[in-house]
Amino acid sequence: MIDKLVEKIKKTQAPIEVGLDPMLSYVPDHVKAKAYEEFGETLEGAAEAIWQFNKAIVDATCDLIPAVKPQIAMYEQFGVPGVAAFKKTVDYCHEKGLLVIGDIKRGDIGSTSGAYATGHLGTVTVGSHTYSGFDEDFVTINPYMGTDSVQPFIDVAIPEKKGMFILTKTSNPSSGEFQDQLVNGRPLYELVAQKVVEWGRQHMGTCGYSYVGAVVGATYPEMGAVLRRLMPQTYILVPGYGAQGAKGSDLVNYFNEDGLGAIVNSSRGIIAAYKQEKYAAFGPQNFADASRQAVIDMQQDIAAALQSR
Amino acid sequence: MIDKLVEKIKKTQAPIEVGLDPMLSYVPDHVKAKAYEEFGETLEGAAEAIWQFNKAIVDATCDLIPAVKPQIAMYEQFGVPGVAAFKKTVDYCHEKGLLVIGDIKRGDIGSTSGAYATGHLGTVTVGSHTYSGFDEDFVTINPYMGTDSVQPFIDVAIPEKKGMFILTKTSNPSSGEFQDQLVNGRPLYELVAQKVVEWGRQHMGTCGYSYVGAVVGATYPEMGAVLRRLMPQTYILVPGYGAQGAKGSDLVNYFNEDGLGAIVNSSRGIIAAYKQEKYAAFGPQNFADASRQAVIDMQQDIAAALQSR
Repeated sequence: MIDKLVEKIKKTQAPIEVGLDPMLSYVPDHVKAKAYEEFGETLEGAAEAIWQFNKAIVDATCDLIPAVKPQIAMYEQFGVPGVAAFKKTVDYCHEKGLLVIGDIKRGDIGSTSGAYATGHLGTVTVGSHTYSGFDEDFVTINPYMGTDSVQPFIDVAIPEKKGMFILTKTSNPSSGEFQDQLVNGRPLYELVAQKVVEWGRQHMGTCGYSYVGAVVGATYPEMGAVLRRLMPQTYILVPGYGAQGAKGSDLVNYFNEDGLGAIVNSSRGIIAAYKQEKYAAFGPQNFADASRQAVIDMQQDIAAALQSR
Repeated sequence: MIDKLVEKIKKTQAPIEVGLDPMLSYVPDHVKAKAYEEFGETLEGAAEAIWQFNKAIVDATCDLIPAVKPQIAMYEQFGVPGVAAFKKTVDYCHEKGLLVIGDIKRGDIGSTSGAYATGHLGTVTVGSHTYSGFDEDFVTINPYMGTDSVQPFIDVAIPEKKGMFILTKTSNPSSGEFQDQLVNGRPLYELVAQKVVEWGRQHMGTCGYSYVGAVVGATYPEMGAVLRRLMPQTYILVPGYGAQGAKGSDLVNYFNEDGLGAIVNSSRGIIAAYKQEKYAAFGPQNFADASRQAVIDMQQDIAAALQSR
């Protein structure tokens, strides 16, 4: 999948993923009304509303982008019907040719990480049949529990040719509380980066990059530059663009000289674009067209920043 | 819920939670056969098998214990039907008067942690109605992303009178890779412990303990002793007993002088007890009775260890 991701990034010229993180407040009233008419003001109704919202945005953007990143928390808030909408979204994105990065930030002791890996990247055997639980192409992983919590994901990913991104330096304001602490004079996130490189050697793509990537927030561009150098063959998933405050010029540090090596996420900035003044002319009825325009603008912003470096 | 947990621990004299972490390989053949007969060898069939397995164990042990801790990974491996079995298990445990600790180890940037908190501890509003997604009483949380990833759980937990346990020093072999790294001469897990205490001050029970607890593995009893002293008003969830290798005598360090302050988890050792030589006489047909005996033995092991200290 890392080879496929790189190939799709080259083809679309868009190192961009759309964060399908629907809050009900982002979903235009007419979409909600239709869903509630069919399923009532229930968890099923909410799940239908976010699924229809996702579907329209995927339809409007799938030719422009290589991948989406649904954040499973946004679905779990609606209980089992929400999780079913997550699965429906994953399957639909695959139908439309998109790669799916499941933003699940899981991680546990060995056998438990194995179960997460099975559910999200692998297959499970029931009697004489085999099934995929959620079937993402990549997942995000929390490394706090160490190698034996990460290895089961790699073990499942190798035969499936799937991948993962390990939280290294996250985009949120408090990320430094533990991640920036100095260990033998170097911040903890560098120690994590070193492990990401080690873990990644087990599962390299033919494109020169590893199937084991890292998450490094766009909100810390100087740290991004250091981490880029420390992990030359690691793909970096970069959250924090747009609504979290980072601009195109903050992103150049995350890319290699080849123009590859990073994929930038935007969630709210794209899926709720119609709520911004800049895209207000589209109106709520054309929310998906506003999202399409926001993807085009983001692509140009990043391309311009990369060209001018 | 921390008051209710302490009250139930006093009443049962069992500072024990049963880890409802069903692998299909733990489920006796006759339970699987019946489930597959009804639903086929499908994800729905697997979900039915683990639900029936859980139900029998809950029925056989609910008068002896205060709480259960279902590990959501074991359900996610079966996709959406598995997650539905998780929810069914949570609801059934509530019916039987048990507290439910959702072992979900979530944690993300602020708004996303907010969505997890909503889904697992809080309520979500759909139109003019309000629903609980999963409705656990406590959850486990990964602190790697810092305060702003934890605070949303506290914000939801305060009005709901619910709680959480923060991963501090985990039971797995690699836990030291990052958690034991020295920061200003002290291991990172102590820094996390300090934060757990700070976070916990916002949400204290009348019993003297905080609604914000810590996870400290039974497999590191010396670190457990240090952490017990550092967090006197923090309830400690202790995994690692039984199948992971820790014994009753390893657990005394986790309890306060009042005999409270810790709740010990056992998963495989209880739910798959019938597979152990010690309980083999029960046979697969009576697997739930074997689990009941394993709970009684565990309770006595811990009580004896606490008395002899």
